Amino acid sequence: TNIQKRKADHISINLNHDVESSLKNGLEAFHFRHNALPDINFKDVDCTTEIFGRKLEIPLLISSMTGGTEQARQINRSLAGAAQRYHLAMGVGSQRVGIEQPELMDTFKVREIAPDILLFANLGAIQLNYTYSIEHCRAAVDTLEADVLILHLNALQEALMDDGNTDFKGLLGKIEQVCKQLPVPVVVKEVGWGISAEIAKRLVEVGVRGIDVAGAGGTSWSEVEKHRSPTEIGRQTAAAFKGWGLPTAQALQEVHTALPETMLIASGGIRDGVEGAKCLALGADLVGMARTFLQAVSESEGALDERIAIFERQLRVCMFAVGAENLAELTHDKLAV
Amino acid sequence: TNIQKRKADHISINLNHDVESSLKNGLEAFHFRHNALPDINFKDVDCTTEIFGRKLEIPLLISSMTGGTEQARQINRSLAGAAQRYHLAMGVGSQRVGIEQPELMDTFKVREIAPDILLFANLGAIQLNYTYSIEHCRAAVDTLEADVLILHLNALQEALMDDGNTDFKGLLGKIEQVCKQLPVPVVVKEVGWGISAEIAKRLVEVGVRGIDVAGAGGTSWSEVEKHRSPTEIGRQTAAAFKGWGLPTAQALQEVHTALPETMLIASGGIRDGVEGAKCLALGADLVGMARTFLQAVSESEGALDERIAIFERQLRVCMFAVGAENLAELTHDKLAV
Amino acid sequence: TNIQKRKADHISINLNHDVESSLKNGLEAFHFRHNALPDINFKDVDCTTEIFGRKLEIPLLISSMTGGTEQARQINRSLAGAAQRYHLAMGVGSQRVGIEQPELMDTFKVREIAPDILLFANLGAIQLNYTYSIEHCRAAVDTLEADVLILHLNALQEALMDDGNTDFKGLLGKIEQVCKQLPVPVVVKEVGWGISAEIAKRLVEVGVRGIDVAGAGGTSWSEVEKHRSPTEIGRQTAAAFKGWGLPTAQALQEVHTALPETMLIASGGIRDGVEGAKCLALGADLVGMARTFLQAVSESEGALDERIAIFERQLRVCMFAVGAENLAELTHDKLAV
Amino acid sequence: TNIQKRKADHISINLNHDVESSLKNGLEAFHFRHNALPDINFKDVDCTTEIFGRKLEIPLLISSMTGGTEQARQINRSLAGAAQRYHLAMGVGSQRVGIEQPELMDTFKVREIAPDILLFANLGAIQLNYTYSIEHCRAAVDTLEADVLILHLNALQEALMDDGNTDFKGLLGKIEQVCKQLPVPVVVKEVGWGISAEIAKRLVEVGVRGIDVAGAGGTSWSEVEKHRSPTEIGRQTAAAFKGWGLPTAQALQEVHTALPETMLIASGGIRDGVEGAKCLALGADLVGMARTFLQAVSESEGALDERIAIFERQLRVCMFAVGAENLAELTHDKLAV
Ligand SMILES: Cc1cc2nc3c(=O)[nH]c(=O)nc-3n(C[C@H](O)[C@@H](O)[C@H](O)COP(=O)(O)O)c2cc1C
Ligand SMILES: Cc1cc2nc3c(=O)[nH]c(=O)nc-3n(C[C@H](O)[C@@H](O)[C@H](O)COP(=O)(O)O)c2cc1C
Ligand SMILES: Cc1cc2nc3c(=O)[nH]c(=O)nc-3n(C[C@H](O)[C@@H](O)[C@H](O)COP(=O)(O)O)c2cc1C
Ligand SMILES: Cc1cc2nc3c(=O)[nH]c(=O)nc-3n(C[C@H](O)[C@@H](O)[C@H](O)COP(=O)(O)O)c2cc1C
Repeated sequence: TNIQKRKADHISINLNHDVESSLKNGLEAFHFRHNALPDINFKDVDCTTEIFGRKLEIPLLISSMTGGTEQARQINRSLAGAAQRYHLAMGVGSQRVGIEQPELMDTFKVREIAPDILLFANLGAIQLNYTYSIEHCRAAVDTLEADVLILHLNALQEALMDDGNTDFKGLLGKIEQVCKQLPVPVVVKEVGWGISAEIAKRLVEVGVRGIDVAGAGGTSWSEVEKHRSPTEIGRQTAAAFKGWGLPTAQALQEVHTALPETMLIASGGIRDGVEGAKCLALGADLVGMARTFLQAVSESEGALDERIAIFERQLRVCMFAVGAENLAELTHDKLAV
Repeated sequence: TNIQKRKADHISINLNHDVESSLKNGLEAFHFRHNALPDINFKDVDCTTEIFGRKLEIPLLISSMTGGTEQARQINRSLAGAAQRYHLAMGVGSQRVGIEQPELMDTFKVREIAPDILLFANLGAIQLNYTYSIEHCRAAVDTLEADVLILHLNALQEALMDDGNTDFKGLLGKIEQVCKQLPVPVVVKEVGWGISAEIAKRLVEVGVRGIDVAGAGGTSWSEVEKHRSPTEIGRQTAAAFKGWGLPTAQALQEVHTALPETMLIASGGIRDGVEGAKCLALGADLVGMARTFLQAVSESEGALDERIAIFERQLRVCMFAVGAENLAELTHDKLAV
Repeated sequence: TNIQKRKADHISINLNHDVESSLKNGLEAFHFRHNALPDINFKDVDCTTEIFGRKLEIPLLISSMTGGTEQARQINRSLAGAAQRYHLAMGVGSQRVGIEQPELMDTFKVREIAPDILLFANLGAIQLNYTYSIEHCRAAVDTLEADVLILHLNALQEALMDDGNTDFKGLLGKIEQVCKQLPVPVVVKEVGWGISAEIAKRLVEVGVRGIDVAGAGGTSWSEVEKHRSPTEIGRQTAAAFKGWGLPTAQALQEVHTALPETMLIASGGIRDGVEGAKCLALGADLVGMARTFLQAVSESEGALDERIAIFERQLRVCMFAVGAENLAELTHDKLAV
Repeated sequence: TNIQKRKADHISINLNHDVESSLKNGLEAFHFRHNALPDINFKDVDCTTEIFGRKLEIPLLISSMTGGTEQARQINRSLAGAAQRYHLAMGVGSQRVGIEQPELMDTFKVREIAPDILLFANLGAIQLNYTYSIEHCRAAVDTLEADVLILHLNALQEALMDDGNTDFKGLLGKIEQVCKQLPVPVVVKEVGWGISAEIAKRLVEVGVRGIDVAGAGGTSWSEVEKHRSPTEIGRQTAAAFKGWGLPTAQALQEVHTALPETMLIASGGIRDGVEGAKCLALGADLVGMARTFLQAVSESEGALDERIAIFERQLRVCMFAVGAENLAELTHDKLAV
């Protein structure tokens, strides 16, 4: 089907083309202050956390990516296996294809493989303006046995598609309804252009329980759509947005300042555990990466495990070298300006 | 004739050589704040405007370029056709050649092809110091059935030509006379080095109704004259001005701050609809591009239409992604610093 | 043995690979103000100093590097010969190998060759958390007839090694004991990531008599460990720290501001006598270089002498050109911002 | 002789090697504000000036360069011919060789060829500490029929030579004596590292009548000496000073601020008439160039004339384009920050 074709394209374009934003993620402006004499035994460094009632060994999220095709099923299962082994969080890709073609919902299901992980269901918020209701949201969560529903905002991406769903009028009210009626918490994320403090505040006011800033500096969905567009007009329109969006570090800072109590996920172009640590010091509770893990899993499950192990070790060493024995100590003042 | 030869040179040098300023247009310093949740239906995005009594579908001007030769006639007719189809504004090149050789005035006439567009006549202001009077201005406007007369200021270009008209003494008074006596509004523009707030204020005080800042960052006329100059002294003199002028964004900001009520055109190195949107947010009423359209029209009329369609789509998507449903909402606060 | 193998690796990796930090040492931000009319006879320029009771002709330290192998013995003897000829200070590498294999302690001994130099013994502070006591420190100093004991802090390096000694808990108290009981002064240094003002203050409070900031911008020990690591996880973990640490100039400034009376050594990526002079103007009493001298000595003793002579001459010319007749006049106000 | 050999080396090294400073001259930070409507007839632009009683058509100085060899005589004569034709100022190179070998003084004499120009004699100030007295200064001026004596300060250069004259102690007093006793004004210049405000003030207090800042950003004499040095120590010592000195724009600004009434010459890496105009706007009365003219004259007298004509035309066009009809109007406020 069409949606299946699109999902397959997303995977192959992300694997075979340079779709990086021309912006940096903004973390390069921050440097940790080295602590030459940490009063810590390295093996006591503890990066466990608890989010929405689930224990995580590492504050790391394999971000929402895929589902709907046979290849996607394999990817989801591999990602879930690793998430379970390392006690991470994981999100699946948009479940719309599974709602519209129920026989495909199966490609998202990973609870069997990963009974203990913090698991995020995923739908495009915009579908709420196109016939979707609380029932669809409930279905997305239930079939997955997910802990949380992520609604993603991708207005710019929809506008860059020939047949995008672009009527965003009044969407906030619909999100409010979902937050009120859904038994699990709702998190809202962008897809790579960032959520500003203004928008985050409006979302939290209507009941959203967590924000994934999903800022600029990593995967650029205008670049992905540029590769998908069949027309010169489509391609050149998309090309003008290669440097669009709020860089991850900036979005993170402004949202954390405006909403210090809200659960925050930092994603968008995070490359390694040191950058992850910067996000945590800037106020994130969880760090998400998408394309990095897609690349690893496309190689092998071993490569995926290795990638996670590298992130974990970088994070631990970094915490040690700034004198933070646990995440509560990984605070803003560990950074220089 | 000499002027005809010069006009032909301008076209061919602009098409075949790199004549870009070494300055940037200054817009790269501005970034729009992404709005992840625009409360807008994309198809309601409205970028119509009304300028000098004419309705435009897009606040886009095909800037003053040519006339006087057979090739120029074809270019003007193609540009006008597109302007009519897309409901844009358009300017013709300097009509001096048509005044001095009346049989050539015909190469500028496009009203038949474009009955509805906002059409700008064009003369070098400096000619008012060299025998031209209100009569010539009237003739330029009337034969064109133009809505507005543009007088361009190109002192530096004239000084870089071997036989330039370089007596600019007292010119402001002559411009005042034209403004007083001409039945249509007068707009003054530069040709790529920018109009400062001081100069703009003096012009508006004597009756000028609009300013096209025509700043630095795009086509550099010192570079064009460098290619035209027959002597080493001429070429090296011109070369020293490759980085000369007020960048478009800077000129725009200072003129808009000084003259918030004056009709403003932003031109000079604008590349796409996102940059156009930045100009509009910085106070411009209309965005002009010259060389970009010359390149397109030299390829084909299809390429020209495509170029306009791309600009329009980029502008609309950009407005959507910052949450501006119409031009009145595309304000300065949509930009970050 | 294992430690011997490690020491040999350090030498060969430092000589054969690019192990530079991706940070600059920070001195590039400082420029001396040229004095066109120094009121000085160049031959009166005097860069002698007295540190811990020893006279130095040049405030230059051949930093702690090696020992434990036959090659290391040769290097130490060559370095000591040059230090004696030029009246410099010198440190030996970590003497742990000599304590654990007493027959190897001999490879560190240079007092016979260099009877007059300021000589620094060297141990990793971390060993105090792993069975070492004041007795080992005393032994390190005594067998060398050293004037001072340097304890180096290398927490990040240990954490990047597979079998590193990474229990840094409570180490400050151990350092305090050594300072109290050792008859010679104790200096603490980093190994290339810098000591911050906070840490320096804590160290001085417990009795440390001098600080070698050993900042970032030169030899990067994460890069060295990257080359040594047998696993991909180890290599990629290390790679994330290539830009880690406090640049030398920054560490120097903040420690000097916090502790204006404390003996300060500047090291980490110093390249020449002009950079050395900048460190002295920023508050250092002594300037250390390691890898530069390793490269020279690996060529020949003549190359080593030449390297020192070049540093000395650059320093003298620099002092002359800023109008400083002696080190006391080489003050902060000779620098521009 | 030795000095003759040195002078020949200076010429050939300057012509055949890259001896540019690694610093920029600082003028790149300044931009003129374009004036789109100058109230000027271009042919009325007047860049004449009067300095030390001589009329100049252009405020341009062919800076002190050479003498003492047959080749130098030819160069001096060619330069003087051009200076006379264009009504410029000119300086000869250091006349020491002519004082020590009187038969060579002739190679400096150009008054016959250039009866009307402002002519600067030249001696190294340092010679006053090595047997030279007012008599030698008088001789240098008289044999040349010069209007002014330039004393150049080159402490750093002397310190980089194996046999340099490096006793600068007490030199200011000697300069004072010359100023008091010499019938013509004394100007002091550097040779490419700049004169700071402090030094300039001291010089003016003892009677110096003009300052040529001769700042960094152009010919670097440490680079020239690097090429001349026979030893590795000499070469590497020199190499450390490639980025040394006060950039021309900075020296100019601080000296002009401190001494607004003093005659100022800007030199050091000036490339064209637009940069020359920036210097004039920053407070210079005269703009000097050396190596540029050496390169031109080494080609042909025609090339030299062309170079001057280009500078003049660039300066005139620049003045026109900022709306300055004469040098008095070429003020600081024509520049943007
Ligand atoms: C192949 C691929 C597919 C994606 N699909 C979805 C999706 O279905 N739903 C969603 O919310 N985000 C999706 N994303 C966006 C990521 O979750 C992204 O927002 C996050 O910021 C991390 O991006 P990164 O690739 O820069 O690490 C996808 C990303 C990739 C690379
Ligand atoms: C080939 C060509 C011819 C031009 N001729 C004129 C002209 O006759 N009159 C005029 O006012 N401007 C003329 N211009 C200048 C443009 O209108 C310019 O001022 C405007 O800033 C847009 O420049 P851009 O090429 O950077 O987009 C010409 C530009 C080009 C490229
Ligand atoms: C080959 C080599 C071995 C080193 N071994 C030691 C050591 O045993 N103990 C120590 O304190 N520092 C050691 N260092 C670190 C230097 O002393 C370093 O801290 C200092 O900042 C100078 O580094 P530079 O190479 O950037 O000049 C070593 C450096 C090198 C290059
Ligand atoms: C070949 C050559 C010889 C020079 N000889 C002298 C000299 O004898 N006396 C002097 O005061 N300056 C001498 N200078 C320095 C110039 O006058 C210099 O100070 C001035 O700043 C202009 O340098 P520029 O080459 O960057 O334009 C010489 C410069 C050159 C290129």
